[in-house]
Amino acid sequence: MFNNLCIIGVGLIGGSVARAARKHGLCKKITGFGRENDLQNLELAKKLGVIDDYNLNVEAALTGVDCVVIATPGGSLEAIFTLLKPFWRDDIICTDVGSTKANVFSAAERVFGEIPNNLVPAHPIAGAEQSGVIASVDDLFVAKRLIITPHKLTDPLAMQRIWSFWEKIGAKVVAMDANYHDAILAATSHLPHIVAFAMVDLLGHKDEQSAIFQYAAGGFRDFTRIASSDPTMWTDICLANKHEIIQLIDDLKDELTKIQQCLQNDDQQKLFNTFNYAGQARQRFLRIYEN
Amino acid sequence: MFNNLCIIGVGLIGGSVARAARKHGLCKKITGFGRENDLQNLELAKKLGVIDDYNLNVEAALTGVDCVVIATPGGSLEAIFTLLKPFWRDDIICTDVGSTKANVFSAAERVFGEIPNNLVPAHPIAGAEQSGVIASVDDLFVAKRLIITPHKLTDPLAMQRIWSFWEKIGAKVVAMDANYHDAILAATSHLPHIVAFAMVDLLGHKDEQSAIFQYAAGGFRDFTRIASSDPTMWTDICLANKHEIIQLIDDLKDELTKIQQCLQNDDQQKLFNTFNYAGQARQRFLRIYEN
Repeated sequence: MFNNLCIIGVGLIGGSVARAARKHGLCKKITGFGRENDLQNLELAKKLGVIDDYNLNVEAALTGVDCVVIATPGGSLEAIFTLLKPFWRDDIICTDVGSTKANVFSAAERVFGEIPNNLVPAHPIAGAEQSGVIASVDDLFVAKRLIITPHKLTDPLAMQRIWSFWEKIGAKVVAMDANYHDAILAATSHLPHIVAFAMVDLLGHKDEQSAIFQYAAGGFRDFTRIASSDPTMWTDICLANKHEIIQLIDDLKDELTKIQQCLQNDDQQKLFNTFNYAGQARQRFLRIYEN
Repeated sequence: MFNNLCIIGVGLIGGSVARAARKHGLCKKITGFGRENDLQNLELAKKLGVIDDYNLNVEAALTGVDCVVIATPGGSLEAIFTLLKPFWRDDIICTDVGSTKANVFSAAERVFGEIPNNLVPAHPIAGAEQSGVIASVDDLFVAKRLIITPHKLTDPLAMQRIWSFWEKIGAKVVAMDANYHDAILAATSHLPHIVAFAMVDLLGHKDEQSAIFQYAAGGFRDFTRIASSDPTMWTDICLANKHEIIQLIDDLKDELTKIQQCLQNDDQQKLFNTFNYAGQARQRFLRIYEN
């Protein structure tokens, strides 16, 4: 479906896109692009057979390429668009895999002056607390949701090709507005990550004083799993979506204050109702998630 | 090691104590005690072979018994001590399995006037989001921490027998002061549960408006697993340890406010440091947990 795929950022996600594209015969060649400090990783990716070759020169890396996948931490988007700009062609489709989407358009607008019609942002809702090309697999996206966020300027044919690409990889594709995407993901992903980081930061300092981690169990392990996610990537995600997240943290603090009041007033019934509603809501989530 | 074990509250934990005691030959007979509304559950426990028999009359249930295990939600402790009081004997050792410990002594003091020297509170740090005798297993406590919280009035021999009982079941036993136990567990267990409940309560209401749960993934599933815990049990635990918990919620709200300020000020470095510290602290926890 593509001739030559260029992956920028051959880590867990970029590497898994490459492996999946190869497995399903969706391109003839896969090139990695990076800068000097990516050299070791690109060598490894080539050695693992994830990419056919790599190039540290952007003009050479884009020669013959008809699809570019940007899979670097979101904070680097503007720098990457700036690198690509002199060699940007209408016959390339450019997509990304970041966890926030409005920032892709704003970065592109700052660099290109307007949003290019061949830019189709996408967000595969898949990942793991591991990172790096060594952790990449060819089935990371199978049966996972993938959200495409086209702009009103986006070429419908470019969008259709990206949609089809992800569908062939096995993802369940939907399209929605970038701002709506960011509001949804702030709730279901960004807020939980921040709370897990905040909790482990808080308890980690207490543990340094009194070794409380000795008495933490499996519930704590699962609750904090996402606090082992890549800190660089999550710093970028949270800053890119900060307005949604700041509001949600306010909501959560209000919710926690309500629980404190129940405790203070020994309001057993209200506390039970809150916990019980939460348990039922989670059942509703599980029914959706498992289907 | 005991002749006749009486289990009050034959659910996940009580049933698993019974199964483990039987497996390791730690008693000759296991009796369940409950009230009219426990009848169906006691019938099931007997049918499953978890208990040998049950009794709805407390005097009869305690005949020949030398160890009583209270495994009901913590809120019922005072009522149970009141039921037991007329038939309390020096040759019975009484223990419980609740997640909070200072409240065991305060409930006993209210009922008995002073803390009985044959009361040895214990807390197995093991559980699951399932509940009920149907979920009970004979190895729930193997390699799990178990904390005994003796009082200065506690008979050392009674404590030794309870220690030995749990050790034979496979638990890793430690002893500590009840108040210290409650402070530690507030941090590693009670606060995470409350935050998971609070988060799912918050997002559950949002989901009712815009179906956000469709876009939640495996990270959210694990983060919220403990929000599926039994709401009755957790209402009791949180109320029993409310002073510790209220303070910790304040700490967490302060931590969340600090993160909001990083976001507001685009303080990338400080945000990264927080996330990075959390990731490293979690590694420290995992090294302890996995050994």
